[in-house]
This record gives sequence, structure tokens and C-alpha cells, in this order.
Amino acid sequence: MPSLESLDPAWLPVEAFRALGGRRVSVRGSGELVETVRAEVREACGRFGGEVVSEGPCELLLEVTAGELRELGDEGFVFAFDGERASVTASAGAGLLYGFFHVVRLGEDAFRGPVRGELHSPALPSRMVDHWDNVAVHPVMGQVERGYAGGSLFWADGAARRDLGRVRAYARLLAACGVNAVAVNNVNVHAAEARLLTERIGEVAFLADALRGYGIRTHLSVTFAAPIVLGGLETSDPLDAGVREWWAGAVGEVYAAVPDFGGFVVKADSEGQPGPFAYGRSHADGANMLAAALAPFGGTVHWRAFVYDHRQDWRDRSTDRARAAYDHFAPLDGEFAANAVLQVKHGPMDFQVREPVSPVLGALPRTRVAVEVQATQEYTGQQRHACWLGPMWSEVLRFRPGGEQGPSVGESADELVAVSNVGDDPFWTGHPLAQANLYTFGRLAWEPGAEPLDVLDEWLRLTFGEGELGGLRGLLAGSWAMYEKYTAPLGVGFMVQPGHHYGPSVDGYEYSPWGTYHFADRDGVGVDRSVATGTGFAGQYGEPWASVYESVESCPDELLLFFHHVPYGQVLKSGKTVIQHIYDTHFEGVEEAEEARRVWAGLKGVVEPERFARGVERFEEQVRSAREWRDQVNSYFFRKSGVPDERGRVIY
Amino acid sequence: MPSLESLDPAWLPVEAFRALGGRRVSVRGSGELVETVRAEVREACGRFGGEVVSEGPCELLLEVTAGELRELGDEGFVFAFDGERASVTASAGAGLLYGFFHVVRLGEDAFRGPVRGELHSPALPSRMVDHWDNVAVHPVMGQVERGYAGGSLFWADGAARRDLGRVRAYARLLAACGVNAVAVNNVNVHAAEARLLTERIGEVAFLADALRGYGIRTHLSVTFAAPIVLGGLETSDPLDAGVREWWAGAVGEVYAAVPDFGGFVVKADSEGQPGPFAYGRSHADGANMLAAALAPFGGTVHWRAFVYDHRQDWRDRSTDRARAAYDHFAPLDGEFAANAVLQVKHGPMDFQVREPVSPVLGALPRTRVAVEVQATQEYTGQQRHACWLGPMWSEVLRFRPGGEQGPSVGESADELVAVSNVGDDPFWTGHPLAQANLYTFGRLAWEPGAEPLDVLDEWLRLTFGEGELGGLRGLLAGSWAMYEKYTAPLGVGFMVQPGHHYGPSVDGYEYSPWGTYHFADRDGVGVDRSVATGTGFAGQYGEPWASVYESVESCPDELLLFFHHVPYGQVLKSGKTVIQHIYDTHFEGVEEAEEARRVWAGLKGVVEPERFARGVERFEEQVRSAREWRDQVNSYFFRKSGVPDERGRVIY
Repeated sequence: MPSLESLDPAWLPVEAFRALGGRRVSVRGSGELVETVRAEVREACGRFGGEVVSEGPCELLLEVTAGELRELGDEGFVFAFDGERASVTASAGAGLLYGFFHVVRLGEDAFRGPVRGELHSPALPSRMVDHWDNVAVHPVMGQVERGYAGGSLFWADGAARRDLGRVRAYARLLAACGVNAVAVNNVNVHAAEARLLTERIGEVAFLADALRGYGIRTHLSVTFAAPIVLGGLETSDPLDAGVREWWAGAVGEVYAAVPDFGGFVVKADSEGQPGPFAYGRSHADGANMLAAALAPFGGTVHWRAFVYDHRQDWRDRSTDRARAAYDHFAPLDGEFAANAVLQVKHGPMDFQVREPVSPVLGALPRTRVAVEVQATQEYTGQQRHACWLGPMWSEVLRFRPGGEQGPSVGESADELVAVSNVGDDPFWTGHPLAQANLYTFGRLAWEPGAEPLDVLDEWLRLTFGEGELGGLRGLLAGSWAMYEKYTAPLGVGFMVQPGHHYGPSVDGYEYSPWGTYHFADRDGVGVDRSVATGTGFAGQYGEPWASVYESVESCPDELLLFFHHVPYGQVLKSGKTVIQHIYDTHFEGVEEAEEARRVWAGLKGVVEPERFARGVERFEEQVRSAREWRDQVNSYFFRKSGVPDERGRVIY
Repeated sequence: MPSLESLDPAWLPVEAFRALGGRRVSVRGSGELVETVRAEVREACGRFGGEVVSEGPCELLLEVTAGELRELGDEGFVFAFDGERASVTASAGAGLLYGFFHVVRLGEDAFRGPVRGELHSPALPSRMVDHWDNVAVHPVMGQVERGYAGGSLFWADGAARRDLGRVRAYARLLAACGVNAVAVNNVNVHAAEARLLTERIGEVAFLADALRGYGIRTHLSVTFAAPIVLGGLETSDPLDAGVREWWAGAVGEVYAAVPDFGGFVVKADSEGQPGPFAYGRSHADGANMLAAALAPFGGTVHWRAFVYDHRQDWRDRSTDRARAAYDHFAPLDGEFAANAVLQVKHGPMDFQVREPVSPVLGALPRTRVAVEVQATQEYTGQQRHACWLGPMWSEVLRFRPGGEQGPSVGESADELVAVSNVGDDPFWTGHPLAQANLYTFGRLAWEPGAEPLDVLDEWLRLTFGEGELGGLRGLLAGSWAMYEKYTAPLGVGFMVQPGHHYGPSVDGYEYSPWGTYHFADRDGVGVDRSVATGTGFAGQYGEPWASVYESVESCPDELLLFFHHVPYGQVLKSGKTVIQHIYDTHFEGVEEAEEARRVWAGLKGVVEPERFARGVERFEEQVRSAREWRDQVNSYFFRKSGVPDERGRVIY
């Protein structure tokens, strides 16, 4: 396993291996992943005085056995403690690997407590991280699109990195939280990156070799126009025989280079990317063509549902971007191939701090669906602000599109995907606390019904050890709510600076072609998405939600401005008017950010110096930025509404 | 002289030389500029059947004579017509060159009409064009900062161009409108460009050689930190003996390479550029140090007065960027060296479509002052919109800071400087009609009191010949007013997209650190710059202007929102309310843009095809952009004010 001295160990510090490393451990089985476990155990025992034993009594048995565990699948395992010996039993190497990290997470608890035997297996078979990494560095966007943690882990100087130590360390971290799939390049596929599919597949294979040792299958983002730009064909029409033949050939070459290749990720007809619309074909046609090429090899196509008109005229109030994914994809339910996965952003817009759950989730029962969340904090502080997204993702996964009797999103979804938040930053994620988002993603993908605060506790204990952390848990637990307080209110979204999306600009997207408006005027604010008088978006939900969202009275406060345009004097369920809510939350949000800064400052000497210093700098910026948000938003709405703050605080 | 077939001849098409080229012409005198004239005459006569004669009778005599013309200076000339023969007499080659182009402008009129003798000499001794060209291409800003006409004329591939044919053609165009000085690099001096002063001075000399043949002296923008970044000193303190010695040595080397070098242009303590404030020195200290180094060689330092706080807190209403130049420089009057020129933007802000004249102009009677205008249309349509700035510049030059009895700006100024609008675009300026701005600048610098419409007529006749141009003159004559109508109203300024400054964003700079605010709220809009209740900026003017601007009643309509914050219902001198004025002008401006597009379309077959096609594309964009401005500005103010348009037109 990698030992990169300068690299932050994240949730796998040496200490986390003390409990098992001090014991007699037996590893039984064979295969690449079993060897990975064996090497891990050897390293831990070497460090902490334990012993790897092949025969005789042991305190921890890690074993792959064919047989009765088959129904758990390759990735499941049984963890048992018989009062003296702990054991992990799996039917395949992957299960053993996850069981090993389960023991790591338990620490001493693995070796004490009641006699027990527990079955563990992932709720979702694919738990994927999508990297929006470019091979080349873009002069404006940088190397990682919407990346806030330095350059790419995978690509440097225009090619795959030669030294993959960091990639292996990353794969290990991913495995330790349950991720088993990675897409190594941006869904916006530029010219150089397009060629990864063909003549540059060797670079992908090189990366795949490093990821495979921790049970991670490699995926590739490809351009729908590949038959034209790479194959020299005149069309990429998905029903054209020559096009289908070209893809079949290309996929064959990919699998020759990467035998366990996971498949493709495709952003088509979206924000300028090519797609099947150009040929009058449906997105099912497009996805199924790629699915057909991948099927013989066991590959999957992840087809993104993020399709909308990004050249909208802001004057046109009849078009509603929130409607787009449902309008495009709901009619296609049942038409997608078995190895095509529709990858759906969790909200109908674009990873805002607060959105309703996408009505697409629940609307395609006969389609394999992946829920896409954004670990990279594009709209939630860009890893300069602490904002732990566990509660938001958990809300999505626990949402029941068909009401209390129906399944939750986490129960009905087939996969969970996160847009990556890591880069070649020494702390992986820019803000050291942003590591919690990646960890939480992996754990929720394994168990969507998990209590996010339990996951947070796991992460804290692994990362910082057992010591006293002051208010750090509370800080993180409340950080999403805090961020929401000082940014766009009541679900209305955006209000960010155009382009880079950092910091406030209330009207930044108000007269733009992107379809992201708040319609604030002197009387009120919000988007009427009701069926009765608005865009009809609320009607895309099943009951009870269509009715809940349809009326101002039943719509939850936090989504009020997403669904309704209301006067500033509208009284919320909280008892406050909308305008007073805006003022109050913005003052509160800043106070909480200041308190968060104090909490971190109190960890001096507890957190190691480099990580502490990085955090100090980030919290400084968070407070500055939160104040900017507070003052711009409050001033904007005070100037527009003319309503003074009830408490007479300073508004500019 | 250059013959570059692919290059637009601008205001020097071959036809412009027909009248003199068909005649017997004698050129008498010697020296580089006389040779330039001789070559011009030879070329014209060769083309149009005339003859260059050295003896005997001629129809045009171009002659340099020492003697009684001395008082006209090197650049003046006498034009005479005795009923049979036209003549230009000058005391130096420069005067002969300008006289030659005077004859070109006159065409056949030079050789007919009454017997006459006219003295011509430039009102301002230095008529300079500043290029904001970088040697290197900036990934965001491009090569020419605020350039809208392609790459640099001077620099390509990281060095001075080797083929200077285009530079010579440019120098010729400049001479033909009276420009005699050029600064060849950006006032924001980056790392590569800093070295033009020292080891790369040879490249500057190479350019200077090409410019010299048309009477143009070369200037260089330098960084105030040069002693540190180039000289390895620890300070650039202007009172430090070592620093002064370093500059003296550097200047000596410059003059060794470029004997007629014009001098330096310096942007110090401005928008991040280094300056004397770092050492507790005044800007007079800074400028005088450079002046002292340049004085032995006859060089001049142009020291820009564009000094303000660009990291202002928008919450701070006490700071007013408009005040900054006066506050910084007025107290220094009398302290600047004789060869230091204070270069002052014509307005107190930054080249907006409407600003009052800068109170700095008129406030430093004992200081040499250059008025800086911006030919490059940063805030006036970026050479995608037709916007002829002649009337605006003329208003500035005719403004009398001390009232009717005192001199005008054009009379009191020592120099006129324009930021260049040309690049390596085939039409020089992107929009072919933007050539008129450069031409008008040169002619106004020669004669600040000239009637701008006469200059426009000159330009039209030279550029397009004598044919019928439909409404083109009217289009250009009204284009500045048109642009003002559909953009920021009543002098309030900005409302542009941040960064690139193209297109509308009403709040784009409202909460920014740049000091450019409109303070619109639900009740009113504008900046209170009165002495009584505002920032006091109005008090920087002498009388009568201080009083005129101080009160809402006497302030001219077009500057009302620059000086006052007024309710939307405020009635203008026009009889309209502010809000109705906003609506009306924005609808009118678009109608005028549509009419301008029709006018240009009517010139098909009259204007040569390439130029026509370029114009068609530009007017298409102008109409689109004008509509965007109209709808955003009107919607913004309707949403804020709630006041409906009296005429019930569509506001979104």
C-alpha cells in the first residue's frame, strides 16, 4: 500500500489500524483483493506488534469461502465475534476487503461486546465517483471542472500520471468507505479527452491497474460524437449501422485493454455537448446504442438526465428549467436497455443548497436509475466553506416519491454517484473538513438509510481519533443549515456570481440564458411552479407531493420560493414573514460562521499543525464570505422591499 | 510606403490621392520626413499620371524653408493657393508632412477657389495614442487589454513583429490625422513587458524606426518597480539615490538605442500597479524622479492620474471613487517638473458613455496636463456597436472649468492622448466605422475647437469618396446619443457585465469593490455627490459648475443620476419623470439601432463587399445587444419601482 509521507491520511491514519494491528490475524483465500487485504494486515501488524498467522489460533480471521454466503454477493460479508475471536467471512475478495475496513472502523469494538454475527452487504451495487478532470488544463476552468482541490489526481502534463502512488492511496480511501467505481474524466469531453476512448486507452488502462487493487472499476466519459471526431464517420446517429459498428469495435478495443472496464458516462444534448437530438433520435436510442456495444462485455452506460435549454430567453416565463429532465425522460420509461443507467441529479436544477427532490426519481420505475449528488462543493462554498452535505443527501435518499407507503429514493434507486471533490491538494479536498463529504457519500451509497450523524461520528473518530474535539461535531452537523442561512433563501437558489459560482450576486443569473431566476420585484420573490398559475412543475410529482407543493399553505417553508412567488409579507409556518426570515437567517448564518471559526480555533494543539493552519485560513474566508452574502442579500431585499428589519440591525 | 493588399486603406484609399497625383508636383527640402513626402508624391503621380518635377513650373509646391515660418514650429505649415499653384511651406519636415496630408484632405479643392494663404499649426504639441498591448497573450484579457480589434500591431509570438509593413501603414494613417506620438505597450506592465525598458529595448528601437518615418515618436510604459524587478535593488523609492541613479542609467541606454525616444507612460499606485505610496512619497516625487532621468535627453514622463481605491467596501458610502483623482493630485499643483505631464482621464470615473468633465482638468494650472480619452470602446460597445465618440470628446474639450470667461479644456490642456482602438484586424478597428473614432481623435488633438461634424465629413469623404452614403452620416452623428439611450441612464454609468464590460448587468458592479454604484432602491436611483448631503464631489469644481451640479434643480438632466439620488417620479427638465425617461430612451435607443441597421443594409453595393459584410454582422449584434440592454434595464427598474410604462409597452 502507498506510503506518501506528505499526504494527509484522511480517514485512514495509522492509528486507525492499531486495534487489529496488535493482534494475531489470519487471512485466508486468494486473488488480487485478498492479497490487498493480506498486505494491509501485514503492514498493520508490523507496525503495532501483531502477527500474521497462517495456522493456529488467531484473534481475527479474514476468510474467503465459497458456499453459503453466495447470496450476499461478491461484496457482502459476515462479521462475527464469538467472545474471543472476530471474523470476517466473504464469498469473494471484494467482500473481504469491505469486511476488513469494517473491522478498521470498529477498532477495539470489533474485539469486545456481545457474541454476534452480522450480515453486511451494500444496498446499491454501484457506488461511483465521477471525476470532472480534464487531461489538459483549461485557462479559465482549470484542470478539474468545478474542482476546488488543486489539479487532477489522474492527469498531469497532458497525460496520465506516471507515479500513481497518490491514485493508489485514493483508491484505498475510497474502498474504506465503500466506493467501487470511478469515472476518470470530465463529462464535458474536450478534444484531447475524447481520444482516451481510442488511441489513448492505454493511459486509462494504466490508471485502471492502480484502482483495481482496491476493488474499483474504471469508467470513462465519452463524447456522443466520437464516431465523427474519432472515427471519421459523417454521422453519430445512434440508429446508423455504421455508427453502431464503430462503437462495437471501439468497445472491443477498450475491453482488450481493460478487461474489467466499467463502462461509459455520457452527457449528451446538454450544455453544448452533442447528442441524439441532432438526428431526431431519443435519448433511449442514444443510450441503448452504447448499451448494446457494452453488453457483451458486462459494461454499463451511465446516461445523464441533465438535459435542458441553456440558451433560454430570460424574458420567456413559460419555459421552466426545473421541468426539463422529467419532460425529456419520464416518457422514455421502459425503453432503456438493462445495462443503461439513467443518472439523475438529486434535484431538478443544479446542486443548489436547497432543492426539492427531482421528480424524475420515482417517475421511471422500469428504468435503472442512479442518483447523482455533488461532493464537490460548487454551490456550497467551494471547499473554502465548511459545509457537510450528509443531511442533504440523506434527506434525498429518505424521500418517498409516492408518499409514506411507497419506497424511498434510497430504496428504489439502483446506484448512487457523486461528482468528486478531490484533487492533488495535500488534504485531498482543499478544506480538510470536506473529506467528510466524500466519506459520507461512500457510506450512504453502501447504506442509504444510514443515519448521517452516525456516519459523521465514524468519520470523526477515524480521522481525529478518540480525543475531545470540542464543538467540531456540532459545527459540521449544522454546517449545511448554516450555509443555507447566509446564502439564497427558502429554496430559491443561485444568487451566485456567474461563471465561477463563488460568492453572492443576487441578480447574477437573473437576466441570463441559464434558466435560473428568482423574479424578485418590489412586492415579492420566488418562482411560481404551481399547476394552477405557474409553470406546472409541481404537477410532475406524484401524490401527496404534487398537492403539498401546489399550494402556498402546504408547501414546506424551506422550499416556498422554489415553488411559489409570494409577497415579502407572506407569513411562514415559522410565524415570520418572508422578508424577516431573510434578514434573520442571514444574521444568524454569519453568527454561526463566526462561532464555527471559534470552534476550529479551539482545536489548536489537538489537530496537527498543517491541517489546523489550513482550517484557520478556510474559516477566515468563510466568515468574510458569509458576511458578504449577508450584506448583499439583505441590502438587495431591503432596497427592493423597503421593509425595515424588525430588530433594527445594520442593512446597507 | 507600405502596400499591403489585404489591408483596409481606411482614410487613405488610393482615390484620395487622385487630385494631387494627376498634377505636376515639386518637393523641395531634405531630411527623413521630406523623403517620406517625396515618396508619397512619387507614388501618387505614378498612379494618376502626374509628374514629380524638380525645376520649372508646377501645380503643387511642397517646400521646407528655413526663415520666417519658424514661429509656426516644426509641425506648422502654410497652405496657399495663388490662383494657379497650390503650395505648402513649412520650416521642417514634420510640417511638410502634415501639409501634404492637408492637401490630400482637400482633394480638388486644394487647386481651386479663391486666392488664399492659411497658417496651420497644431494646438497641442503632443497628440499621442497609447496602446494597451501586451507582448504576451493573456489567457483572459487577450493580447490587447480592452482591445476589440484582434491582436497587437506591434507584438506577435512574444516579440516585436519582424514584418513591420502594417506598422508603417498604421504610422501613415496616424500622420494623416495628425498623431505624432505612440506608446507601444500596456500601462499595466507585466513581467515580459517590463524588460522592454532594458534588455529588450532593441525591439522598441526596431518599432521606433518604423514609426519615425511618419513623424511619430515612440514612448514606453514602464513599471515603477523597475529598479527592483529589473535592477535588483531593494527599493524603488523615488528619493533614494541608488534608485535615481539606476533610472538615469536605464534612460541613458534607452536613448542610446532610440535617440528621439519620447518618454515614459506610468500607471502607478493604481489597480495593483506599484507606486510611490509604498515609500510614503507623493506622486510628484515619483513623476519628478523619472522626469529628472529623462530631462537631459528631452524626454517626457506621462504620469497617469487614474489613482483610486479599487478595493473599496461597497458598504462604505463615504468613499467616492469620483473624488479620488482630484483628492490625490490637486494638492500637488506646481510640484511637477517641467517635463512631467499629468495624464488625466476626461471624466472622474472611467470612460463611461456619459460623465461630467473631470474636475482635475482646470484644477492644476501650474501643471502640464494631458487629457486622456478612450478610442477603444471599452464601455461604448466594444467596436461591435457603432458609437462615434466625436461629440463626446468635443464636449469635453469645449467645457470651460472656470465658466464662460475662462479657457476651455481644449485651450488649457497641453496634450491629448487616446487609448488605441486598433489591432491586427483587417479593418484595423473591428467595426469599420470605429475608424472614425481614431481619425476624429487625431483631428481634435490638432484642433480641439474643431466642429466634430466637420471632422466626420472629412472622414466620410476620405474613406468612402464623394458618392451618396444615404443616412450614414446621420447614423454616425447620432450613434453616441443612441448608445447612451439604450445603456445606463442619466449619467449613472456602468451597469455592465463585470470583467469584460460588454452587455448589461444592472447590478453587476453594485456590490463590488470597484466603487461604481447606482444605489437603486424601490424609491429612487443615483449617487448623491452634493456637498450638502452627499460625498462632496460636486465641490471639487470651480464655479459656476460647483453650484450647477450641487442642486437637483440646476444639474443638467444627462448628469442628474451622477450627482444626485432622486425618486423615480422626479421630473426632468424634459418634462418627463426619471422612470418614464428610462423607459422611453430605452425603447427609442433600440428603434434607432434598428434604423442604423437599415441604413447600413442600404449601402450594399456602395461599400465594398468585405467591409459591407463586416458591418452587417456588427449591426446585427448591435440590435441584439441593444434589445438586451433595453429589456434588462427596463425590467430592472420596473421591478424595483413598480411604475408602469405610460405607453404600456412590453416590459418583462
